[in-house]
Amino acid sequence: MGIRVAVAGASGYAGGELLRLIVGHPEFDLVAATAHSQAGLPVAAVHPQLVGLDLVLGRTDPAVLADADLVFLALPHGESAALAATLPDGVRVVDLGADHRLTDAAAWGRYYGGEHAGAWTYGLPELPGQRALLAGATRVAATGCYAVATTLALAPLLAAGAAEPDDVVVVAASGTSGAGRSAKPHLLGSEVMGDLSPYKVGAHQHVPEIKQATGATGLSFTPVLAPMPRGILATVTALPVDGVPADPRAVLAQAYADAPFVHVLPEGVWPHTAATLGGNSCHLQATVDVDSGRLIVVSAIDNLGKGAAGQAVQCANLMLGLPETTGLSVHGIAP
Amino acid sequence: MGIRVAVAGASGYAGGELLRLIVGHPEFDLVAATAHSQAGLPVAAVHPQLVGLDLVLGRTDPAVLADADLVFLALPHGESAALAATLPDGVRVVDLGADHRLTDAAAWGRYYGGEHAGAWTYGLPELPGQRALLAGATRVAATGCYAVATTLALAPLLAAGAAEPDDVVVVAASGTSGAGRSAKPHLLGSEVMGDLSPYKVGAHQHVPEIKQATGATGLSFTPVLAPMPRGILATVTALPVDGVPADPRAVLAQAYADAPFVHVLPEGVWPHTAATLGGNSCHLQATVDVDSGRLIVVSAIDNLGKGAAGQAVQCANLMLGLPETTGLSVHGIAP
Amino acid sequence: MGIRVAVAGASGYAGGELLRLIVGHPEFDLVAATAHSQAGLPVAAVHPQLVGLDLVLGRTDPAVLADADLVFLALPHGESAALAATLPDGVRVVDLGADHRLTDAAAWGRYYGGEHAGAWTYGLPELPGQRALLAGATRVAATGCYAVATTLALAPLLAAGAAEPDDVVVVAASGTSGAGRSAKPHLLGSEVMGDLSPYKVGAHQHVPEIKQATGATGLSFTPVLAPMPRGILATVTALPVDGVPADPRAVLAQAYADAPFVHVLPEGVWPHTAATLGGNSCHLQATVDVDSGRLIVVSAIDNLGKGAAGQAVQCANLMLGLPETTGLSVHGIAP
Amino acid sequence: MGIRVAVAGASGYAGGELLRLIVGHPEFDLVAATAHSQAGLPVAAVHPQLVGLDLVLGRTDPAVLADADLVFLALPHGESAALAATLPDGVRVVDLGADHRLTDAAAWGRYYGGEHAGAWTYGLPELPGQRALLAGATRVAATGCYAVATTLALAPLLAAGAAEPDDVVVVAASGTSGAGRSAKPHLLGSEVMGDLSPYKVGAHQHVPEIKQATGATGLSFTPVLAPMPRGILATVTALPVDGVPADPRAVLAQAYADAPFVHVLPEGVWPHTAATLGGNSCHLQATVDVDSGRLIVVSAIDNLGKGAAGQAVQCANLMLGLPETTGLSVHGIAP
Repeated sequence: MGIRVAVAGASGYAGGELLRLIVGHPEFDLVAATAHSQAGLPVAAVHPQLVGLDLVLGRTDPAVLADADLVFLALPHGESAALAATLPDGVRVVDLGADHRLTDAAAWGRYYGGEHAGAWTYGLPELPGQRALLAGATRVAATGCYAVATTLALAPLLAAGAAEPDDVVVVAASGTSGAGRSAKPHLLGSEVMGDLSPYKVGAHQHVPEIKQATGATGLSFTPVLAPMPRGILATVTALPVDGVPADPRAVLAQAYADAPFVHVLPEGVWPHTAATLGGNSCHLQATVDVDSGRLIVVSAIDNLGKGAAGQAVQCANLMLGLPETTGLSVHGIAP
Repeated sequence: MGIRVAVAGASGYAGGELLRLIVGHPEFDLVAATAHSQAGLPVAAVHPQLVGLDLVLGRTDPAVLADADLVFLALPHGESAALAATLPDGVRVVDLGADHRLTDAAAWGRYYGGEHAGAWTYGLPELPGQRALLAGATRVAATGCYAVATTLALAPLLAAGAAEPDDVVVVAASGTSGAGRSAKPHLLGSEVMGDLSPYKVGAHQHVPEIKQATGATGLSFTPVLAPMPRGILATVTALPVDGVPADPRAVLAQAYADAPFVHVLPEGVWPHTAATLGGNSCHLQATVDVDSGRLIVVSAIDNLGKGAAGQAVQCANLMLGLPETTGLSVHGIAP
Repeated sequence: MGIRVAVAGASGYAGGELLRLIVGHPEFDLVAATAHSQAGLPVAAVHPQLVGLDLVLGRTDPAVLADADLVFLALPHGESAALAATLPDGVRVVDLGADHRLTDAAAWGRYYGGEHAGAWTYGLPELPGQRALLAGATRVAATGCYAVATTLALAPLLAAGAAEPDDVVVVAASGTSGAGRSAKPHLLGSEVMGDLSPYKVGAHQHVPEIKQATGATGLSFTPVLAPMPRGILATVTALPVDGVPADPRAVLAQAYADAPFVHVLPEGVWPHTAATLGGNSCHLQATVDVDSGRLIVVSAIDNLGKGAAGQAVQCANLMLGLPETTGLSVHGIAP
Repeated sequence: MGIRVAVAGASGYAGGELLRLIVGHPEFDLVAATAHSQAGLPVAAVHPQLVGLDLVLGRTDPAVLADADLVFLALPHGESAALAATLPDGVRVVDLGADHRLTDAAAWGRYYGGEHAGAWTYGLPELPGQRALLAGATRVAATGCYAVATTLALAPLLAAGAAEPDDVVVVAASGTSGAGRSAKPHLLGSEVMGDLSPYKVGAHQHVPEIKQATGATGLSFTPVLAPMPRGILATVTALPVDGVPADPRAVLAQAYADAPFVHVLPEGVWPHTAATLGGNSCHLQATVDVDSGRLIVVSAIDNLGKGAAGQAVQCANLMLGLPETTGLSVHGIAP
């Protein structure tokens, strides 16, 4: 008999990917999946790719969730804190939302508004020392999708003293599933196909999370919506520290030598998002710009994989003492 | 120690998907992957989604293949027969190409040209009695991608006497990976994105295969290239047999009651290709046209999954006495 | 001073394309554009591609429309009849909606419901004799997008006695703009990219319109949503009439010898949708299926061009005694 | 009788767009279009969107080109200099390639190699004073696509002393037509759909052109291939000059007050590429990043329009004393 797992917010895109991973996980038993307006529908009516999954979406009832060993919360920002507060300590919880990511209440207020729910253990296993923290945690705040892509590219360079923290510039493009499943006019297929559009330019809510996770002190972050369902490509640049002979690729390769899901590609090979689709991998490459001398790192992830559901399962594996890779794939599905 | 598996033609799209499935298969050990012009390259240089797979593409050497227990041939049409002839009887072979599909030498000559290599056991497990044949086979010709989508939709209606075999009309659209990985101008992204284009109109080489597999006697088949990497959607229509109260959906549901990968969707729910991406499932739905009275069946598959690599692994499982579903997923990856 | 033109329903996709064509038309002056929920917004806020167009969307006020010489109605089905009834006889009206297309009130009731508003002159100039009717008309019902693509492919074959009218099978795929601009979950970019999905299978409201326009007596019509913003590709098949030596391409070429916007492509060249994007052309090709003997015609149009706004302007040109091609392009924009 | 115009390199994507614009231009007569391997084919066989254009592609014969009043060169880099040298002074020439853009021979050698052909009048009319130079020019080097998008965003900020020139960071994503029409494996539709991939990271040949055109002294430029046929979205960031109260949007609005094709969008509205498709416009917006204080400007163009063929026609209009906008559209085609 496996670990009893429940998902709240199972009708969205991250929720659907969680369900897929959970039913394929050798140690997990999916016992409940809850939703709001779509409660009462079979899972396969909401997620046709999960045909044959014999489960009906329930209402988001704390009592049902409390009966599980492990609960994933895939709710809109601001909804998970109240729900999490109702769950017994013995239930492990991984929150895919932002509610418990930030340690700085002021930053929370500035970018999200409302009361700060307090920070949980941060769910990015590849940060130094983080696996040990996750192993002992019962409450984990999984990393945001843009923050995964940016932090994995940037954190080792700052930690190694190779890059200046005060003038980091990031442009990151995401597939549309990152914008969620709510029907909004600007997310219609007719609008997004053939189109690139920036949004939240100059003030994106992932900025404080990335600064907290990386140690960057000055960060310009511009997100762009790209005409594809999945994937994030982040171009991260920073000034080199004077006098440090920077080989940014070597710094990354050393930092991730033991990380099963982070792959520093062979020299000269650059990441692209399609190679990560459906898997839990992050692909990285780095160089020094010949003109400006800036360090440039590019990272690619599946925003619903390593950027959301896969990351959450990876964290759960660590919380439960399972091998980090259980039920996850390093391989993508291409073309 | 598992079953030793080799793939010839591993650099193409079907080859790449085979490698992904083989390395994830609990009973298979990938021992060799061969190619032509890309021999000598690491697999991950050719298939970046298979990052971390520590294997170099070899030359297509019969001796290497003969050393395996199971060989998948994912070669261009006309190249597998000669290679297969060199392999010992004890090596099980699944050919994803067309060389051994047709029993009718004349039809082979008409659509493919060259000498007819003779037919092998046909690799479509869902045809009546076919699982038993596959269980005893050492040489299997896996079904073509369009033939999978069309045959699964049509065969039960003809077998049940519900549809007339002499005036079947099929229009099937495929993602571009079905056209292969050779660099041809009309397959450039700039050409295919935003575009639908028919091809081989009036004379497609899958026609004799579909007729052989379904019993259709008159078949108009029009393929269309669609702006997406994967997926086939086949719209299959046939005249009802007079006097037979046709409920085509019920006929299909009964035919596939025990087929783990063929899903007749709930009434009113129509298949769409994205729900099958990455899995080995075929989704089906059927109705009677209110104006013409024609039976309309729509099927959706992943052309590289149930239409190629997944199907081939499913056949291999049956040949080897393994559960049909080993190492395969009924679930797709969406969005 | 030019012809004063107004557009009702200017906030949708057909409305936006109408505005673009009108402001580029040498004889037209755009005097009003009206909308519902978006009234009060500048046109460019709703249609960013029309940057610099200095006009605010007004409310749909009959008095404003009555002040124009020519009014285009690009409203949802069922909304144009009432509005049209308020307009003076002297105002020419082209309705892009379905309200006045069908002559058969029963067919209207069956597919659309509600009261039948009566038929106007049918806006497909390429039908025999239709240009003369349009020249004298003040009320024109422009053809539906699927009906344009199907009728141009089929009508000449039936008129020439080359094809049987009682067993026509059509599968037609459309870009997503054909589904309109309302935010619906299944039209999200995340859902439609990488996906083909059939809809209204077995009972589509364009069936009676196509039968009326072509003379077909039995018609199976299956529409498919394709992952691209614009374009319709229709595959139209019909049985040949016994004893008639069918050269379907020659029949089409003769029928459209004088039609500036309908192009029968050189032998062996098949239409594809991208070549029609942004223009008012229909591309056609035909053959006889070698296996079944069916006649197969494929047509490609831009659903917002020849399938909607372009067609409407073409009709208006004829109503006004202008050259048919004024302000329209036969050329598409590719890639 | 109009101006006699010829296009060399008419079989590529920029060449096709040039043909479309020329045949729609009220003052131009297209007299010749030349190509290499596709010489001898009708234009419409190579550019199906130009159906009905009755012209055969000729060989690239200097005598034929010399007979025109105006020649557009749309050739691969390195091929236009030799050809241009054969043309009489009286023939006006617009080169869409890079051969005559750079004034710095050393920079040419570093990024392109081979002999430096010398610089022509730079074809970006919106630069201060450039219209006057173009009016007197007979040889014009049209701006590169990425350089258009970046320079229009950046040049006014540097000219106004609002931004520092030494730490400019640009990430720009382009549709695939920017990579040309040669059949290369990585440009196949199967590869590019659903994918974002960076290329030439750390050393792109547009860097010296952008520095020359803008006055930037330090520039990190990262290009990304995006899954769409057309469009460039450039995100341009630079540090503000200390003590200068920067309102970057106001600086841009003033710079382009009289530019018919450059549109600074209303405050809060960000450019997106689809709105520029098929037109000659550049859309701009700017802000100050709340966290880093960097100036962020985003620009969107159609890479084949304002980024290539449209720009070239705009330059030719100025060279010929025609209104700058003749034969060009400020409006895009969407969706």
